[in-house]
Amino acid sequence: MPEVSIVLVEPLYEGNVGFTARVMKNFGFTRLVLVNPCKLGDDAIMRASHARDVLDNARRMTTVAEVYREFDFVVATTGEVSKSVCTPMRMPYYSPAEVREIVADIDGTVAILFGRENWGLANEELKRANLICTIPTSDVYPILNLSHAVGILCYELANLPRGEYPIAGPVQMDALYEHIDAFLDRIDHPDFKRENTMILIRRLIGRTKLTIREASTLHGLMRRTEWQMENREQTSYKGEI
Amino acid sequence: MPEVSIVLVEPLYEGNVGFTARVMKNFGFTRLVLVNPCKLGDDAIMRASHARDVLDNARRMTTVAEVYREFDFVVATTGEVSKSVCTPMRMPYYSPAEVREIVADIDGTVAILFGRENWGLANEELKRANLICTIPTSDVYPILNLSHAVGILCYELANLPRGEYPIAGPVQMDALYEHIDAFLDRIDHPDFKRENTMILIRRLIGRTKLTIREASTLHGLMRRTEWQMENREQTSYKGEI
Repeated sequence: MPEVSIVLVEPLYEGNVGFTARVMKNFGFTRLVLVNPCKLGDDAIMRASHARDVLDNARRMTTVAEVYREFDFVVATTGEVSKSVCTPMRMPYYSPAEVREIVADIDGTVAILFGRENWGLANEELKRANLICTIPTSDVYPILNLSHAVGILCYELANLPRGEYPIAGPVQMDALYEHIDAFLDRIDHPDFKRENTMILIRRLIGRTKLTIREASTLHGLMRRTEWQMENREQTSYKGEI
Repeated sequence: MPEVSIVLVEPLYEGNVGFTARVMKNFGFTRLVLVNPCKLGDDAIMRASHARDVLDNARRMTTVAEVYREFDFVVATTGEVSKSVCTPMRMPYYSPAEVREIVADIDGTVAILFGRENWGLANEELKRANLICTIPTSDVYPILNLSHAVGILCYELANLPRGEYPIAGPVQMDALYEHIDAFLDRIDHPDFKRENTMILIRRLIGRTKLTIREASTLHGLMRRTEWQMENREQTSYKGEI
């Protein structure tokens, strides 16, 4: 994965800068670049919360030209609104998920540019971008808060491994379906319904991505039921003898 | 597209409620439910910005139980932190992208639950959820701001295709879980295991988006098993008399 920096161009509100630092750190990003930002005070620090280090270590630049000089690959973000004023300047544009696919293969440094809260990025600032990214939004109210836009890009780019829990494999699933089929025999489930019922059960359990623990609980419940039936039968036979 | 509502459970900071309204509207969602929220004043209105209508039209509820009574399918969100204290209560969990896949097929009302800023959702509030969702975050600083978490879910859930088959609603699901609980009694399932087993079953069946037909097949299989047990018992009694 390439080294990704988040670049805020002339942010106007320090609270947004703080929230940006926080949401970056939430997704494992620590490189923040501030181009000619507003003054940062208590509000930025408060909203950065435990990402104070990201805020403190933010690099300062004075123009967007510096960003283009330094980074190997620059993605510029634009809102749905500015996209609609579209010249080739802001076209074609990619969704965050598409940007992720493209950026994943890059061997170099990547900067994601976010414009000012009120009017975004100027054409001059967009011109040299390798890629234009637009987060798909509602026509009714397309203007995202700056830190929410950063959060969505970071979420997509994070590619963080998801926690693992063991899913039941084919051997375990086959054993479970065999047990269920045997159980249906045990309760005299009619043959003419059997195939459809087994298909319904396979569809139903199949889409759960059953965990190993859950599979074993299902076996356990069937065994307990079988034992109850068995036990009662034996009592019954004893009574008859 | 199913009707998706965002539910904030006892939010503590009005600013987060305002930002939530805004980011919802950015992605085309307008149904906000507030369960016993903090007082909403100027800060909420300011951060809602042009989503003042979403804020003003927010429904109020007093307990999470009302949410479960009303919605067909409930997704509960938990942080990476609470996930690590893992009992069946918070397992297995799905990423927002996976939740989107599952929710896409639902023909019914969907609620996405978000807990308090400081300690999330209580086990009591999670217990009946159909699905647990965790946004994958960095171990270094996993705690997302509430409105950023909402934003990421809304981003993923936007533009869902329409549902196609009728899923079992809360009344049908309650009847099914009652039947299962009674069935566990019937097979002398031990009391000390009962709560965990019922939670595991709710998690498992909950995430299947059970159709009405499937629910009725499950009832049928349990009734057949019960009948078999009953019948064998009667035989047994006859034998003893």
